[in-house]
Amino acid sequence: MEEFSGAEHAGGAGGAGAAPPTKEQLLTGQLTAAGAPGGQALGPGALASRQSSVTPGLRYRNLGKSGLRVSNVGLGTWVTFAGGVSEEQAEEVVRLAYDSGINVFDLSEAHSGPRAELELGRILQRRAWKRASYIVTTKVYWNTKSDERGLSRKHLIESVKASLARLQLGYIDVVIVHKADPMCPMEEVVRAMNHVICMGWAMYWGTARWSPVEVMEAYTNCRQFNCVTPICEQAEYHMFCREKTELYMPELYNKIGVGLMAWSPLTMGLVSGRLEDGMPLFSRSSFKNKYSSFSWTEDETANKEDKLRDIAQLAEKLGCSVAQLAIAWGLKNESVQCLLLGAATVDQLYESIQSLQLVPKLNSSTMSELERILDNKPTRPPMVSTLALR
Amino acid sequence: MEEFSGAEHAGGAGGAGAAPPTKEQLLTGQLTAAGAPGGQALGPGALASRQSSVTPGLRYRNLGKSGLRVSNVGLGTWVTFAGGVSEEQAEEVVRLAYDSGINVFDLSEAHSGPRAELELGRILQRRAWKRASYIVTTKVYWNTKSDERGLSRKHLIESVKASLARLQLGYIDVVIVHKADPMCPMEEVVRAMNHVICMGWAMYWGTARWSPVEVMEAYTNCRQFNCVTPICEQAEYHMFCREKTELYMPELYNKIGVGLMAWSPLTMGLVSGRLEDGMPLFSRSSFKNKYSSFSWTEDETANKEDKLRDIAQLAEKLGCSVAQLAIAWGLKNESVQCLLLGAATVDQLYESIQSLQLVPKLNSSTMSELERILDNKPTRPPMVSTLALR
Amino acid sequence: MEEFSGAEHAGGAGGAGAAPPTKEQLLTGQLTAAGAPGGQALGPGALASRQSSVTPGLRYRNLGKSGLRVSNVGLGTWVTFAGGVSEEQAEEVVRLAYDSGINVFDLSEAHSGPRAELELGRILQRRAWKRASYIVTTKVYWNTKSDERGLSRKHLIESVKASLARLQLGYIDVVIVHKADPMCPMEEVVRAMNHVICMGWAMYWGTARWSPVEVMEAYTNCRQFNCVTPICEQAEYHMFCREKTELYMPELYNKIGVGLMAWSPLTMGLVSGRLEDGMPLFSRSSFKNKYSSFSWTEDETANKEDKLRDIAQLAEKLGCSVAQLAIAWGLKNESVQCLLLGAATVDQLYESIQSLQLVPKLNSSTMSELERILDNKPTRPPMVSTLALR
Amino acid sequence: MEEFSGAEHAGGAGGAGAAPPTKEQLLTGQLTAAGAPGGQALGPGALASRQSSVTPGLRYRNLGKSGLRVSNVGLGTWVTFAGGVSEEQAEEVVRLAYDSGINVFDLSEAHSGPRAELELGRILQRRAWKRASYIVTTKVYWNTKSDERGLSRKHLIESVKASLARLQLGYIDVVIVHKADPMCPMEEVVRAMNHVICMGWAMYWGTARWSPVEVMEAYTNCRQFNCVTPICEQAEYHMFCREKTELYMPELYNKIGVGLMAWSPLTMGLVSGRLEDGMPLFSRSSFKNKYSSFSWTEDETANKEDKLRDIAQLAEKLGCSVAQLAIAWGLKNESVQCLLLGAATVDQLYESIQSLQLVPKLNSSTMSELERILDNKPTRPPMVSTLALR
Repeated sequence: MEEFSGAEHAGGAGGAGAAPPTKEQLLTGQLTAAGAPGGQALGPGALASRQSSVTPGLRYRNLGKSGLRVSNVGLGTWVTFAGGVSEEQAEEVVRLAYDSGINVFDLSEAHSGPRAELELGRILQRRAWKRASYIVTTKVYWNTKSDERGLSRKHLIESVKASLARLQLGYIDVVIVHKADPMCPMEEVVRAMNHVICMGWAMYWGTARWSPVEVMEAYTNCRQFNCVTPICEQAEYHMFCREKTELYMPELYNKIGVGLMAWSPLTMGLVSGRLEDGMPLFSRSSFKNKYSSFSWTEDETANKEDKLRDIAQLAEKLGCSVAQLAIAWGLKNESVQCLLLGAATVDQLYESIQSLQLVPKLNSSTMSELERILDNKPTRPPMVSTLALR
Repeated sequence: MEEFSGAEHAGGAGGAGAAPPTKEQLLTGQLTAAGAPGGQALGPGALASRQSSVTPGLRYRNLGKSGLRVSNVGLGTWVTFAGGVSEEQAEEVVRLAYDSGINVFDLSEAHSGPRAELELGRILQRRAWKRASYIVTTKVYWNTKSDERGLSRKHLIESVKASLARLQLGYIDVVIVHKADPMCPMEEVVRAMNHVICMGWAMYWGTARWSPVEVMEAYTNCRQFNCVTPICEQAEYHMFCREKTELYMPELYNKIGVGLMAWSPLTMGLVSGRLEDGMPLFSRSSFKNKYSSFSWTEDETANKEDKLRDIAQLAEKLGCSVAQLAIAWGLKNESVQCLLLGAATVDQLYESIQSLQLVPKLNSSTMSELERILDNKPTRPPMVSTLALR
Repeated sequence: MEEFSGAEHAGGAGGAGAAPPTKEQLLTGQLTAAGAPGGQALGPGALASRQSSVTPGLRYRNLGKSGLRVSNVGLGTWVTFAGGVSEEQAEEVVRLAYDSGINVFDLSEAHSGPRAELELGRILQRRAWKRASYIVTTKVYWNTKSDERGLSRKHLIESVKASLARLQLGYIDVVIVHKADPMCPMEEVVRAMNHVICMGWAMYWGTARWSPVEVMEAYTNCRQFNCVTPICEQAEYHMFCREKTELYMPELYNKIGVGLMAWSPLTMGLVSGRLEDGMPLFSRSSFKNKYSSFSWTEDETANKEDKLRDIAQLAEKLGCSVAQLAIAWGLKNESVQCLLLGAATVDQLYESIQSLQLVPKLNSSTMSELERILDNKPTRPPMVSTLALR
Repeated sequence: MEEFSGAEHAGGAGGAGAAPPTKEQLLTGQLTAAGAPGGQALGPGALASRQSSVTPGLRYRNLGKSGLRVSNVGLGTWVTFAGGVSEEQAEEVVRLAYDSGINVFDLSEAHSGPRAELELGRILQRRAWKRASYIVTTKVYWNTKSDERGLSRKHLIESVKASLARLQLGYIDVVIVHKADPMCPMEEVVRAMNHVICMGWAMYWGTARWSPVEVMEAYTNCRQFNCVTPICEQAEYHMFCREKTELYMPELYNKIGVGLMAWSPLTMGLVSGRLEDGMPLFSRSSFKNKYSSFSWTEDETANKEDKLRDIAQLAEKLGCSVAQLAIAWGLKNESVQCLLLGAATVDQLYESIQSLQLVPKLNSSTMSELERILDNKPTRPPMVSTLALR
């Protein structure tokens, strides 16, 4: 897979020899301020103004086998637009992400409700960045507790139109269908998503929390009815949730071009610094309920906390925080085309972004050490030949 | 087929332990009044406000094998918007239906003309309910007495656009094509309906009064030309009209996913209380002409009135009206995903909705008793093997 | 082929027992005047007001195997909107046609230029007839003398959009592609026409002056690329131009559902009364140049004038004009689903419409007599078996 | 391949016998001035006014096997809208091209940035020529130095919409995709281009600088997904760059109908008269960098300058400039359906257009002489049979 470094990507404004921006420049937004007036012009000057900062380690890769190029880290806004974060603070986080070269902003109605779309919409309006310079991904969410439940065509289309209105955008880059609905025929889902793309409301579509078989079924239906195929699956991926990403996503990528955007409740929790405060992360039920898709027993939690302490020691040795190590570990996996970072403050985000520089340091011995600590490398069960059973 | 009870469906507002609303609350509209302000907001609070009342026995099921979830009873508006019912009265009926958890409003130009669409449109405007919370089904009607006769693409498209204008809606949930036209090629019909859906004017399409073979032909043409397939057939179904629903609709559902919305002139006539008044229902020609699709001879009518008297006795034993028994009997059939109830007054509708609680009481012995009284269980003629004839 | 008489068609307003309107009523427009106020309403009353007059012999038939129902005679406007006819006079002709139950208005840029569309558009605006009650067919015309020549997608789409603007209509009922273009791939033509229909600019498309093989090629391309197939061919048809209509169109109708609208320069010339004036019709070069697609030698012309004199005698015996006989003869052919009548004045049109009553009088002996006079019954050359040649 | 001469093409206004316009008439714009008022009318008079001038040798040919008819020379605007040319001067060049019968205006963001589209848009607004009378081709350009790099659906669609806004046009005639992107699946490209055409934003699409195999791959994907196929490839073609055009384009034309628009940096450089000034053309790095797609070594450059001197002698013998000979040589190749001429001034363009009259003079002996001088006739390597290798 070809990659382009953020440095090369920055183009004419900074030049290859220009020094990366300092933390202060980034945090105070000096860079964007300078670039802003050009943001509304049509000329090539406006294009070059996109990334005056160069973030070491930031790269752009095609999402799945699509032509869409995403930064290897994206901003997962589920904390940014959550309660307790002011709109000004949220805007600063978004601005820092953009100035750092991040071009993916992921929204999730499930976590932050429609507020995230409304706020991001207002920020994008105010900032007036070139539409080509960022990618908005949002979800069609459905639950089993409202009468809009189910992935009906009605719900899919209404949901996308409502998102567009809240975002004040002409189109969404990737509409993510959150969870497959066993009660709704896959033909209806893929036809509706194709319709959404044909109407110009979205450029691409993807899935979140679908099983590999469900993704394959969607692909098959797209081929059968000549519809546009999904380009990515959003999946949970961190040190304690590896199976799907490591065992099955590479196969989906190779066979049908579906890429991976990963979100990591662990990373996010760790970044907020709570573990370092000595508070046992996994006992905090609020974290579990809000961000994690699975529940752990008390035993499992204790076991994981042991491992985290070992990891913390390793991080110290590497001169980084546990959270940074967790992010770098995720980025190390080639299957992860975009790792979503959550942040409530610019400092959190800045710290997370620094993990990018850590990736090259994760050499094979460090990775082996980590593997030894985690002791959970997923393996596929051996193929049972139906012939052998005879 | 999975089902969700209305109770679970009600979500956070009422909670599982909340008492069902009283008749007085429902009839005076207290519930909606409370929920109304939230109805225009975008937040999840608005979602929850949808059904603050819990109607025992009301359930939501997928219509056909589509993803669209309909309440097991719907409001058939052919009486509601007929002459003699004031607009205020009609609005009260619609409001009660909505508050009771009914999400299907069925319109029928054939019976009430364009007035029904105009009035329902105005009611929906005034009520400002969330568009996702209700389903409007209306018909493309054609007859042999006007120059718009026939299911031409011209007529189908003009008809849908006119309905949208009258309803003041962005889309119709299900456009029902009333009667197949042997003079119009099926390709033209399915392409036109696909166009209607592609233009965003409708979410789904279905049929009414089509023979099983005609439905199969439509399905085949959809597959041939890569068009969206119909999701339901509207058919007459009651104690004296059972063949199509009981013999053929299950096969269509299983093979091509076409579901069933049933309308019942019998039920409607009975609900209006006329039988109880001692007036022989079937001799009233106005009823026959207006609501029933077939004519009975005087003999048949007499025979049916005998049966109805036996049924009336059974109803009395069950502590319900004949109409309620007739509705419950219809709901007992799993093939009927949505049974349309007609009502001119809130009292009629309230009484009909109570039938939902009767369904569990229709145990096998009661059903057997009914079968014995009716003595009209439809059977398919034995397959005549063409081989055997040799 | 099922037919419905104009009488039955008239619906409630007139009723079956009502007397047909008198010539005076029709010519002075009394009927429309009465019906006009209802024409803008949406109710079923407006529907019924469409045809308060009953024209004996006027019938509605499906055009080709499409669902579109056309009157068996249509108004070919090439004379109506030609130079020398005032706009008021043209409107009177259109009004009479409409009041007589004619629902087809055919436009032809080739003959009258854009003026016809502009004038008809204004008339339809003023009259405010229900859009469903009439059918406008217009042509995409191209010639070899302008740079827009050729049936490019560019030209087809621009031409249709320009027609819509001139007509002030939301859609054209049937867009007719005038002459096939051997230089433009058929795939481009059928894809462009499919696009025109998908955009809602037209309901159907057809061809004019295409050879049977060209029509078949279009049909094949439609099937290959899943495009909407053409529904009719417009062809010249009269007593001296019979081959295409009589030998090939029935096959196209039966095999691929392409119907026939016929236009007849002969009929039109005769109707104008010129022959009766003793002027030799065929020697008038202006007629030949303007309306006829082929040229005759002087000999042929002389021969045809002999035949016309015999026909005139036959017409006299039948109590009608030669023109009326020519029209009735055309209508006698079942393959002609719509015969276009040209008229510059209401009197001409009225006289032509009377021919409808003549059709039943053309019994087999009269037809034989005509066949004997014409002596030009077309026959297909015997099939030469390639096997026999071996 | 059928051709129509510009003379015949001029239609009624000038007539066949009318004298071609003088150079003065063309340069002062007298012709357009006279034709301008009619340009906005809808009538056939406006049509005829399109080409009041007759340019000897100018012809119209179908581009590829599409129905679009292009003049055999087009205006390549990369010099016209470059820096140093005033807007008035550019408008004069465009006007002269139009008046000379040229109907192709080619834009190239790569060379002149968005300025070209903005200026041409303003000129077309002011001139108010009939939209049918000219063809605008513009490019979707992408590079490896901005984050919009790659032929993603997002970039393709945004690029086309931005071009439309700058051009103030309802549609682009041919959207040219500049360079294939090995990182973007061909399915995404052809689906996006099909979408662009379905939305009415473009009439056709083509490619520029694609290899024959890439063009074939696009075609195959179009066929697989039922998308509109590309109609042309834009390729560099001149005396020193012959292989692709002479060896591969005829095969693409014959097999999949893809035609050729040729642009020639040589021609453009020569036309500017620099060679005649004695300045060695190929040593001027600015020319090489800006207009030529390949770099030559110093040796090659010297070799080519020798050849150019021989060609200059031949041109002198023919009574024309080297540039005119180069253009005529390009037009002589039947595979070149449209040769783009660049011009910064009306004099340059006028001189280039005169080359059209030179084409008939390039008889076989002159062509042989040229072939002898160039000594670079491309040949395909002999087919190596894999069987023979065994």
